[in-house]
Amino acid sequence: MYNELKVPPRILLGPGPTIANPRVLKAMTTPMLGYMDVDFVEIMDDVVTLLREVYGTKNKLTFPISGTGTSGMEAALANIVEPGDRVIVGVNGYFGGRIADIAERCGAVVTPVKAEWGDIIQPEQIIDVCDKVSPKLVAIVHGETSTGILQPLDDIIDITRKYGAFFLADCVTTLGGQPVDIDERGIDIAYSCTQKCLAGPPGLSPVSFSERVVDAIRKRKTRIQSFYLDVELLEEYWTGDTRKYHHTVSMSLIYAIREALRIIQEEGQSARYIRHEQNAAALIAGAEAIGLKPVAAARYRLPMLTTLRIPEGIDDATMRNRLLQDYNIEIGGGLGVFAGKAWRIGLMGDAANEQNVLLVLNAIEKLLIEFGVTVEPGTAVSAAAAVYHNSE
Amino acid sequence: MYNELKVPPRILLGPGPTIANPRVLKAMTTPMLGYMDVDFVEIMDDVVTLLREVYGTKNKLTFPISGTGTSGMEAALANIVEPGDRVIVGVNGYFGGRIADIAERCGAVVTPVKAEWGDIIQPEQIIDVCDKVSPKLVAIVHGETSTGILQPLDDIIDITRKYGAFFLADCVTTLGGQPVDIDERGIDIAYSCTQKCLAGPPGLSPVSFSERVVDAIRKRKTRIQSFYLDVELLEEYWTGDTRKYHHTVSMSLIYAIREALRIIQEEGQSARYIRHEQNAAALIAGAEAIGLKPVAAARYRLPMLTTLRIPEGIDDATMRNRLLQDYNIEIGGGLGVFAGKAWRIGLMGDAANEQNVLLVLNAIEKLLIEFGVTVEPGTAVSAAAAVYHNSE
Repeated sequence: MYNELKVPPRILLGPGPTIANPRVLKAMTTPMLGYMDVDFVEIMDDVVTLLREVYGTKNKLTFPISGTGTSGMEAALANIVEPGDRVIVGVNGYFGGRIADIAERCGAVVTPVKAEWGDIIQPEQIIDVCDKVSPKLVAIVHGETSTGILQPLDDIIDITRKYGAFFLADCVTTLGGQPVDIDERGIDIAYSCTQKCLAGPPGLSPVSFSERVVDAIRKRKTRIQSFYLDVELLEEYWTGDTRKYHHTVSMSLIYAIREALRIIQEEGQSARYIRHEQNAAALIAGAEAIGLKPVAAARYRLPMLTTLRIPEGIDDATMRNRLLQDYNIEIGGGLGVFAGKAWRIGLMGDAANEQNVLLVLNAIEKLLIEFGVTVEPGTAVSAAAAVYHNSE
Repeated sequence: MYNELKVPPRILLGPGPTIANPRVLKAMTTPMLGYMDVDFVEIMDDVVTLLREVYGTKNKLTFPISGTGTSGMEAALANIVEPGDRVIVGVNGYFGGRIADIAERCGAVVTPVKAEWGDIIQPEQIIDVCDKVSPKLVAIVHGETSTGILQPLDDIIDITRKYGAFFLADCVTTLGGQPVDIDERGIDIAYSCTQKCLAGPPGLSPVSFSERVVDAIRKRKTRIQSFYLDVELLEEYWTGDTRKYHHTVSMSLIYAIREALRIIQEEGQSARYIRHEQNAAALIAGAEAIGLKPVAAARYRLPMLTTLRIPEGIDDATMRNRLLQDYNIEIGGGLGVFAGKAWRIGLMGDAANEQNVLLVLNAIEKLLIEFGVTVEPGTAVSAAAAVYHNSE
């Protein structure tokens, strides 16, 4: 027989999941409703409206896919890509690579536009490749969780539009922590997740498709290869007048995202974005004060996820294990080329606060001193505290 | 601004979701853990072990897909089917049709084996078609939620094996409410859901693949068209020694399924199966006593879902709306050919109990009387009570 579930009280400061807001956890204790219950349909409508707000869009086809962020990525690609379609993918980190992989599985002819991990994709690179391949779709990661880069989108969207292609933005890490502004920017397809800056549990992937893309999907020559992710069917359930059954969505996760989005509405989007930026600034000030260097250049840093180079002579796994075991703090290790070379510290959603910044800086500093690095105790926390002091 | 979530206290006696066990809802308030946290990996291992128990299998590749039942259906098919593969699908209800649809989207050449909705697929039909098409896969729905049929599997599995094909069973409705017995029966691929007889929230799809099927998947000539559902990648995260990252599973839903499976272990599988059968028997006795006729023949009835023909002159929507509004009871309407012609009453998981049987029979009886049907008040409840009395 198995015991009752018990988990350690982790302070989750990695690449996600972040700490879920207690109100969101409480919402999940709400009893089930039928997937066609009028009361449930109202809750679905709330979620759609609130998602449109945080995404900055009037797109009718805005709703959560019943799966995690990667299912949203796959839904985005599987619906618009037909076999043989030319797709340009910015690959400057792990998740760009994943987009390319999935697009190929959908039958796309993918042209990757590469940059070093930790650099941004340059608009000129996109022009060059658009000239060569006349793409149907250009796909870019807005916030690359593997490198800590916040990719500027506006120039690339202009170029994409000029070449008559659709623009896809991976907003898995940015939604709820930085403006996505779908309509203002002219993003055609976006997807995200719930366990990062929305501060909910993982399990849903909010997606949004522009009317232009929906038109193109309706004119496909081939069937969408996935039934589960087929937005023409999902549209009927999520936004149709008839609410035709497609699959049984997870009431619990719908309750959770509704509450998470309600909390964002209460805080206000711009206040929330500024909070993410300020806490990242304090974290970086503290980290730099004890000799930890950010991977990303200052102007392209992702506020909700900071990558720091691991100093020479410090063992990645030892540090992260000690943080977890001694302090209950989880930070992320490096992915791909950054494995063993960088730490990823996430300050996402509720977790983007002063308490966590001071906690993690203090813990890292103490361990670095224990591992033989020469640092005056309190250096990191003082530097961070100064940032908070100055921003008041 | 939106109000706090409030939902009516529905008694869910439809085709699912069923009422989630309160212990399962409570488990979902457990805080998040990192997807690689040693404590979370232990919880994942518990889920795998408990799933193997309820599925009756030693299959290594047994775990929940991060999506609802339909995602499990798609995972099952997308992994084994390669373009051009011949697949036989039993179609005697809505979900057999869905299997055929998804198999075609995976590139299969599908041969449907049809029976009337409400009838079973006969083994002889499978022999005939196997002779003609030499299939790679035979796919059958174990419990057809659209018709209330419990399909006998053993003869069809023997035939499938004789023709050298793999056997897939859709156990969405049966798992946790009737024996699936993967190993004893020789099922190669099975999938289910969490919101029916496991009495959890929707959102996960427990799947199991036999070693034979896993071998065949490893020898595929083409890539699996879905990255999200690619079991070779999922295997590394769920059961590999290295636990390689694939996607961020929903901690909350993993906590939920662990608790749901723990409750099944406590009750004991055979006690649980008998409970489902006894409550179905009482429901049917009560229904028949007031003139409601089951769609399915007595020997093929699905204990967790009873389909009843709607009497002449009674309006389907009116009855279901009144049950919902006056009694907070949800029952299901008919799907497909049974739309407007049958009701679907689910007694699944915890909801399969005497209290619910008496409640729903009493409410239906009162409404039928109100709608002009001649019935002596108390007839349905007396007939059901007699079944409980006799089975004590």
